[in-house]
Order: sequence, then structure tokens, then C-alpha cells
Amino acid sequence: MENLKTDKSNGMLSKNTVKFIKSLHQKKYRNASQHFFVEGEKSVLEVLNSNFFTETLFATAEFLEKHSEFVSGQDLDIQEVTQKQLESMGHYQSNDMALALVKMKENLPIKPEKGEWILALDDVRDPGNLGTIIRIADWYGLRKLLFSTQTADFYNPKVIQASMGSFCRVDFSYGDLESWLDAYEGPVYGAFMDGENVHGFQEIHPGVLVMGNESNGVSKAIEKRVSQKLAIPSFGQAESLNVAIATAILCDNLKRLERHA
Amino acid sequence: MENLKTDKSNGMLSKNTVKFIKSLHQKKYRNASQHFFVEGEKSVLEVLNSNFFTETLFATAEFLEKHSEFVSGQDLDIQEVTQKQLESMGHYQSNDMALALVKMKENLPIKPEKGEWILALDDVRDPGNLGTIIRIADWYGLRKLLFSTQTADFYNPKVIQASMGSFCRVDFSYGDLESWLDAYEGPVYGAFMDGENVHGFQEIHPGVLVMGNESNGVSKAIEKRVSQKLAIPSFGQAESLNVAIATAILCDNLKRLERHA
Repeated sequence: MENLKTDKSNGMLSKNTVKFIKSLHQKKYRNASQHFFVEGEKSVLEVLNSNFFTETLFATAEFLEKHSEFVSGQDLDIQEVTQKQLESMGHYQSNDMALALVKMKENLPIKPEKGEWILALDDVRDPGNLGTIIRIADWYGLRKLLFSTQTADFYNPKVIQASMGSFCRVDFSYGDLESWLDAYEGPVYGAFMDGENVHGFQEIHPGVLVMGNESNGVSKAIEKRVSQKLAIPSFGQAESLNVAIATAILCDNLKRLERHA
Repeated sequence: MENLKTDKSNGMLSKNTVKFIKSLHQKKYRNASQHFFVEGEKSVLEVLNSNFFTETLFATAEFLEKHSEFVSGQDLDIQEVTQKQLESMGHYQSNDMALALVKMKENLPIKPEKGEWILALDDVRDPGNLGTIIRIADWYGLRKLLFSTQTADFYNPKVIQASMGSFCRVDFSYGDLESWLDAYEGPVYGAFMDGENVHGFQEIHPGVLVMGNESNGVSKAIEKRVSQKLAIPSFGQAESLNVAIATAILCDNLKRLERHA
């Protein structure tokens, strides 16, 4: 590992570095510094392989040994640390591998293309739900995500964790859903308890799928911009489904019914 | 509220009672005493309305006032407590309403009937996943659940919480899935990454749906007893879906495709 720019001063991780990484648990410090962190072997390898820019890799000797070939090809600062140091900085209770300090991306607008699905979240507040939804979107090939400004923060460590690496494979933009939808020309589908049974459709043309807030569903302002309300049929007595579960079921139906004009 | 058997000795909740309820966070004490607890306004009302036997209702004055009519019709011991006392006993960080001490049900075998769906879980270990799956089963009208002995405990407070009241509306049995399936005569479906694309079916006859462990999927022993492997089609790059998400998607497809012979 001679060719690695590894800081072998094990245990000499500066207090300021630890303090800085810990500050990134909070949104205001992430926004101020424009950095976030990614934890765990699999997610760190995925972010190193993605179009995110990783500035510093904090990793155990075991990780650097196991992935020496891959890591040596990367232009980044590497600091060898202990498991205990990783855990003192990050969000994982147990992290025996790595933590990457990564630059946030610029919040660029999402440009729709004809025949393409876009997933829009109208105030999904729970970070676990957001991370799970990102993983589902990646499974179903929905690569463009629109988030209302009140939706949970993409860079929250719980979102990154729940997305299981899928955060690397989606484009996303925070902004005003209302004005975005006003400019959008394709069909806008939304999840509603009183929508039309999605099992009854023969085909569906790609467009935007809007999922609403955990407690209140899709807001009134966005509802006005929905061209087709969809409902998941119930065969039992549960009152509702979790928003991530509902997103998965609707994505599955939409991809099955997808026809291109 | 004169007619309620309310113990108004507020603050006099005995140390032994608190200790007993707290012991029910652990499976071994739940099994030893054959009791579990249910928290929060909505779930407590659901369990009082169900065929579970509630022995004691610990509730705040607000809860007893709000639901006086309903509660007074119940044959149970009522103890008025404070929010702080509820939180000291239960699992919720914030519980301003009620906690019910409920008797566990006898572990009776599940008897299959023709034309009926049964959901079988082969070592689903995470309590949050189990609770979410119970809610999904209730949504899709799958009322009979079979759990392998290594599946998470139904009475775990996290399972009860995640099921959002649906734990009251399902029948379930823990036991040896292998011998149960050996005696079962209908079709056995299972979730497998290399199964047949569920979108390709024209119809499906009701039977057992088997979902596997979070890391390892369906075990080899159970795989031998599956007559039709099913896969959820992927359109993107995520490697897998969470087991609760996969259960929801398969239930949605099976109910859509359901035909009775």
C-alpha cells in the first residue's frame, strides 16, 4: 500500500476533524459546509464509484488492505483510523470499515424528457422513508426525483443509510413542486385514498408520480395539478399503508402498465 | 366517570407493577408470564375492541375522559396514571394516553381452507419488518400468518407498534414450516431473486406465499417445498428490496391475479 496517500499517524485524528464530521449530523452544518458523510463498506465503495466527489476517506487498515487496488486508483485524501474513531464520528453504532467525507451536489433543476418517469415527493418528512423510497426508485429505474422544500434532507445520514447505496444512482432536486408541475406537460399521477383503483388500468403513459406526506397525503395545492388520482386497492381492514410501501406498490403497477405513445 | 373501576390513587402505581410491565420488553419474561403490552391511544382502543383479553388498562385522565363511554363497557381493571408513568413503563418515548396489559394468545395451529391465502415467514428477524408485514397482510386481507420459530416475536413492542393496530386482525402460529408445508396440498409460492417474473402471469390460484430472511432469503429446506418461485422485476440497479417492501409488491400482484378454480 506504499502508493496510497495514507496518513498512517494512527490515533492522531485531529479533534477538529472529529468535530467537523460530527457537525455534519445536522442539516445546518451540512448546508454551511456543503459536505455530508457516507458510512459502511458497501455504501463507501458505491460513493467512491459514483459521480459524487469524495474528499477524504477515513478507513480501517482492514478496509484499505481489502480494497487497496480500488482505493489506490482514486484521487483522494486517505486517513487510516480505528473502528472506535469511525464510530465516534459517524451515525452507525457499529462501523468497522469506512466513512467518506463527500461534497454535496449543486441543487440543479430536473429537466423532464418525454416518455420518462419522474417521482415527486410532497413533504415526505421521515428520513427512513425517504431513504427507502430512493432505493425503490432505483429498483424501478426512476432516476429523476423531485422533492418539495419540506421533504426530508437527502444528505441526512439516516437517508443515506436506508437508501442502501441507491443515493448514488438518482438525480434529485429540491424546489417548488407547484411551479415545476405548472410548467410540466405530461401526465401527473398522484397517490390518493379516493383515487382510481390502479389494478383497473390497461395501460399508462409515463409521467410524474406524486407521493404525499406521511400524515396528510398530497397537499391541496399539488392535488389541483394531478391529472390522474391513483389508489391501491384494499382487500382487508388496515386503514392505510406506509408511504414507502405505497410508493413501491404504485411503481410496480406503473412499470407493469407502462406503454409509450 | 363514577361508574369506572378506576384506581384514582394517582402516583401510587406500585413499584412491582412498573417492574412487571418493564420486564415485558423482553421475550423471556413475556413468555414466562404470557402477557404483553400495547401502547398509544389508537392501538389500545383497537386491542380493547379485539378478541385479545386485556387485563389492565393504564391510562391518563385525558384518555379516560375522552373514551369514558367505550371504556366503561369493558370488564377490566383500570388504573389512572400520568404520562410520565406511562413512559417509565413502556417503549414509547412519548405516550400521553394509554398502555394496555394484554394476555398472549395460545399458539394454535393454522388450518388452511381452500381458496384462501396464507402468508408464511421463514426467519424474518427484524421486529420493524414483521410489524410492517402484518400491516400489509391486513391491507391485502391475508388473515392467516405462519411464522418459523426463528421469526421475530409477534409480541415484541416494536412489532406491535409497526403493525399500527393490524396485530389485532390476523391469526398467526409459530411452528415448523417444513412439516406444515409437507401437509399442505395447495400451491406454495415463494419470493426468489431468480424466480419467474410475477408481471408475466395471467392468473394465480390462492395458496401459501413464503417470504424469506432479510439476508439469506428463503432457506434451502423451504425452497424444496415451493411449487412456484416468483420474482419482482427490476428496471434499475438497486440490488434488492427490503422484505416488507417485497411482501407488499407480491401481495399486490397476487391479489390482482387471483382466480378461484
